[in-house]
Amino acid sequence: MKAIVSLNAGSSSIKFALFTLEDPAAPHMVAGGKVEKIGISPSLTIRAADGTLLHQHDWRGGERLTHAILLEELSGWLLGHLAGHELVGIGHRIVHGGTRFAEPRILDQTLLADLEALCALAPLHQPHNLAAVRAMMKIHPALPQIACFDTAFHRQMPETASRFALPRALHDAGIRRYGFHGLSYEFIARQLREVETNLADGRVIAAHLGNGASLCAMRGGRSIDTTMGFTALDGLMMGTRCGTLDPGVVLHLQTELGMGVGEVEELLYRKSGLLGVSGISSDMRALHDAESPAAGEAIELFVWRAARECGAMAASLGGVDGVVFTAGIGENHAGIRRQLCERLEWLGIRLDQQANEESQQIISSGDSAVRVLVIPTNEELMIALHTATLLRRLRGSVSPQRGGRCI
Amino acid sequence: MKAIVSLNAGSSSIKFALFTLEDPAAPHMVAGGKVEKIGISPSLTIRAADGTLLHQHDWRGGERLTHAILLEELSGWLLGHLAGHELVGIGHRIVHGGTRFAEPRILDQTLLADLEALCALAPLHQPHNLAAVRAMMKIHPALPQIACFDTAFHRQMPETASRFALPRALHDAGIRRYGFHGLSYEFIARQLREVETNLADGRVIAAHLGNGASLCAMRGGRSIDTTMGFTALDGLMMGTRCGTLDPGVVLHLQTELGMGVGEVEELLYRKSGLLGVSGISSDMRALHDAESPAAGEAIELFVWRAARECGAMAASLGGVDGVVFTAGIGENHAGIRRQLCERLEWLGIRLDQQANEESQQIISSGDSAVRVLVIPTNEELMIALHTATLLRRLRGSVSPQRGGRCI
Repeated sequence: MKAIVSLNAGSSSIKFALFTLEDPAAPHMVAGGKVEKIGISPSLTIRAADGTLLHQHDWRGGERLTHAILLEELSGWLLGHLAGHELVGIGHRIVHGGTRFAEPRILDQTLLADLEALCALAPLHQPHNLAAVRAMMKIHPALPQIACFDTAFHRQMPETASRFALPRALHDAGIRRYGFHGLSYEFIARQLREVETNLADGRVIAAHLGNGASLCAMRGGRSIDTTMGFTALDGLMMGTRCGTLDPGVVLHLQTELGMGVGEVEELLYRKSGLLGVSGISSDMRALHDAESPAAGEAIELFVWRAARECGAMAASLGGVDGVVFTAGIGENHAGIRRQLCERLEWLGIRLDQQANEESQQIISSGDSAVRVLVIPTNEELMIALHTATLLRRLRGSVSPQRGGRCI
Repeated sequence: MKAIVSLNAGSSSIKFALFTLEDPAAPHMVAGGKVEKIGISPSLTIRAADGTLLHQHDWRGGERLTHAILLEELSGWLLGHLAGHELVGIGHRIVHGGTRFAEPRILDQTLLADLEALCALAPLHQPHNLAAVRAMMKIHPALPQIACFDTAFHRQMPETASRFALPRALHDAGIRRYGFHGLSYEFIARQLREVETNLADGRVIAAHLGNGASLCAMRGGRSIDTTMGFTALDGLMMGTRCGTLDPGVVLHLQTELGMGVGEVEELLYRKSGLLGVSGISSDMRALHDAESPAAGEAIELFVWRAARECGAMAASLGGVDGVVFTAGIGENHAGIRRQLCERLEWLGIRLDQQANEESQQIISSGDSAVRVLVIPTNEELMIALHTATLLRRLRGSVSPQRGGRCI
């Protein structure tokens, strides 16, 4: 039977999952896991779909192991555990598709070169995504690799929502609002159609609250607005990222405090957000457990800003029928969901406190004017679905074209 | 009888008004006007309170005339037309009071030095404000000059609303959300108490929409949130300013497009906003009259972003009882008010179309859940009120203290 792998390679971690294709339209996850702490002390954990630990390895003194070497290790394990399945493709999360790429595509050298040119738009993500593609091409030269774009879901936003108030020439040159977390939002939209058909047709705020965080305003399952713009710095306050920031501050840091552009980038991407405000941690759990007032201030600011942006999304939608929480914080932090929903009571939101504490699928009360749900996201499944679909389509054609010419 | 002058000196214009103090608690405007196009072809226009033209002068070839020289001309006219009144003080709009100054204060060399140090926080406004103070001190060395701060009204915002998601040390060093247009919002809050007492106690979004533009979320007449942050670049799209912008764009313009910090500043302050998007004009009237699709896109973006930020302010307020339009666009552009209110119908807003077309004081319909008003702002009067009050208080004390020690 056929199998595919989905890969999501970041700067310090590689997430992956192995799917079999009993039903070619419904990939079935058999195992998944993460390589973590790349560059510090890498470790690999692989679990079966039911959570059983299948494999665990720590590389002591492995701070110099590259993504390529770790992917080779990972690939070795996967090939050794295919149990008779034939690996037919690898799907990759590619953060930025720019203005040209939205549909999933077979990766070749031409496409890779085009995507390399977009690294400047997502300097902390895109290079790692592409490095993983190159590494896997080397290991499996004959295997199709498929690019799935995180910007794709927002590509059909109204023109207005894609614009900054900058000179037209910059917009035309690609300096526009792209939005991210698209694979996650696409999964939520798809899932919503299964569990709450009416809501899927309505006005929904999807809240992807993780270490990276954003909101998406969906109408009828399509993105019409989102809080992230040109880069993954924009919008909500995040673990270590500042989110929306007066552009005058960026200028001031340079002109008055004498910081270099690189220093400012480091500050805004890695030293701000929950970590910067608390001075303690970028991790919501750690802040929750900390007794310090600064930790409380960081959480308060996170919630206040998220509520504010929910108001903005509500304006874009012209009202709200539903709110969906997903990703690390959204799925697991009942306290954050409660605080945020309290700030949104004016929208007609009422929580079922117990359902919220238990992270049930529906956490709004019966008399809530707005349905509130928790839906665990599954970007790996979306990648697998896109990959399986594209491979099937290519097999269906007489002469499958590749790269720039396909689709 | 006593008289005072209020001054609002910007980079290319100086607004002023002359008030008499028949009732020391209620300054009465007798004349007011503007020096415009400083540095290009300066002109001075002075009108009586009823609009009658009192004086008009163009300086042909006067592109080198400094603020100081023009203020001397203006001062000369004012002194010649006091009609027996005694000039007892000059009130100045000072854009930035930083973290230390909120209450109006007598200006002396110590305070001037402190305010000079804040120029970096408002490079396009503060230096001109202070230059006017110095010029008037030279012309009238014995006359009290009073600083009225545009940041003051927002000083009591909740701590959370004053924070960026940046490291604590930067917040403590003054990189925080100050908010501007404070004299305008203070006037609106005061006026609202006279015309709509119930609303004055409620949750109000005040929309100061002019060439500079911002929103203020007021509860019980106090600012609890606003769209401008550290600088006057932040928040809404403006005539030539970009408003809120993904900080990643500021970095990208430098690292990838090779722009210098100064160039970026020039771009974001002077070439963006309505002008940048339309490619035609920063003036809403001109865009309204233009047939070009780009002009339509600029207006659409202005309205969409204002609606989005109204949603954010509604979230901070926990719902909305009233909306107040003020300043150039807010007072005069019925079409913009209509488009914005249509986008806010989900908040329960219904316009009385005719009242709106006529720019009446109340423009919402009887069945609107939210009261919508048009209140012409009057920053000059707020400056005069603060100035008269402070002078009265100082005269009341046995030994009026000055500068750093007063109040």
